[in-house]
Amino acid sequence: MKTLVVCSGGLDSVTLAHRIAAQDGLERLISFNYGQRHLVELHGAVTCGKRLSVPHDTIDISGVGKLIKGSALTDFAGPSGVEVPEGHYESQSMAATVVPNRNAIMLSIAFGVASATGCSAVATAIHGGDHFIYADCRPGFANAFAHMQEHSLEGMNSPQLLTPYIASSKADIASDAARYQVPIDETWSCYKGGDIHCGRCGTCVERIEALHHAGVTDPTEYEDSEFWKTAEREG
Amino acid sequence: MKTLVVCSGGLDSVTLAHRIAAQDGLERLISFNYGQRHLVELHGAVTCGKRLSVPHDTIDISGVGKLIKGSALTDFAGPSGVEVPEGHYESQSMAATVVPNRNAIMLSIAFGVASATGCSAVATAIHGGDHFIYADCRPGFANAFAHMQEHSLEGMNSPQLLTPYIASSKADIASDAARYQVPIDETWSCYKGGDIHCGRCGTCVERIEALHHAGVTDPTEYEDSEFWKTAEREG
Repeated sequence: MKTLVVCSGGLDSVTLAHRIAAQDGLERLISFNYGQRHLVELHGAVTCGKRLSVPHDTIDISGVGKLIKGSALTDFAGPSGVEVPEGHYESQSMAATVVPNRNAIMLSIAFGVASATGCSAVATAIHGGDHFIYADCRPGFANAFAHMQEHSLEGMNSPQLLTPYIASSKADIASDAARYQVPIDETWSCYKGGDIHCGRCGTCVERIEALHHAGVTDPTEYEDSEFWKTAEREG
Repeated sequence: MKTLVVCSGGLDSVTLAHRIAAQDGLERLISFNYGQRHLVELHGAVTCGKRLSVPHDTIDISGVGKLIKGSALTDFAGPSGVEVPEGHYESQSMAATVVPNRNAIMLSIAFGVASATGCSAVATAIHGGDHFIYADCRPGFANAFAHMQEHSLEGMNSPQLLTPYIASSKADIASDAARYQVPIDETWSCYKGGDIHCGRCGTCVERIEALHHAGVTDPTEYEDSEFWKTAEREG
């Protein structure tokens, strides 16, 4: 199966790319610049493409991010900007990191590119740990999206949607990262987008916890490598 | 109902914007630069926004068009570019104008913007005349898309999808254009993107026919205003 992987450069999607490459199905990677403050994550996708010897494209949809205000991930211009919350990933405060319709937008574009470039599948690393906060990471969304795509590309090359991690935890993905020899320090999770991972934002806490629970050595450098032990779970 | 209208600047979507404005529901317009060769159509959307006194944004997703090759609407660089076909709109040759997943991509972005800007509906001018060629203009697609959106924006501001012309013909829309006093010569249909409408491509033929069948005076200047009478219907 010739598979296009939507790859942000984070631990989950880079691991997914390695897993699919190990199964001889990886065709290409695409990433999105949607105006995220942690644009540095895209370096992780670029290096992943080079490592796995497949084409990688970054699609600029930053004009979309400018219109979708109110998310901490995109809305950071000026004093009224929204702060990236710290604490546990399941906390209510992480609601500030929701970018409405982000996955629908990225997957729609991915399916257009996959259809036009002869791919037979589109893979995304949405996983069980995202379900609480992000509606567009839940199985109901994935099923409805796949059904919509069948209609949209009827009569054309119509790739299928692959979501191998949809019932997995982030720790399961961390185990896969070790299994498929992902260079973990070449992936980027932090939502703050500084020079190194902050260790305090929701995705940093989630990343550290997942690697810890999976028993995988974490070579990542964090500004605060202790915070995750005390981060409050509200969930 | 605060409605965002996806407006290309063509006869259909400009008429839709006028109709919704007449019903006091028009909130904003958005257009897309997806790398189409007939970028001139966007002028029709800009002037429509000014005329109806609502915000209008053009979202640049031309990076998407660069990756989705093989359509006559976007693939026109160099000698291998795909020619815009001439003839009747229902002809098989119009298949060359399909941009895979175009409506899914544009509507997904529209829903993200609508959700973030407090709109309660997204309207698109897909109509019955488009069903034959474009899978993503059919009722099955519209229903599946609306269902996907319910999942994607669950728990957030979740606009509804309005497709008032989905069972209408282009001639019905032409009648509406007259009813809502649309300045027809300020809309753009031609896929070729020249200085004036060519009169020979599928959308020009369709436009002329629709206005003719609706008995609406057509003030548009065409390079070839007679071709439509002899354009072959293959169906």
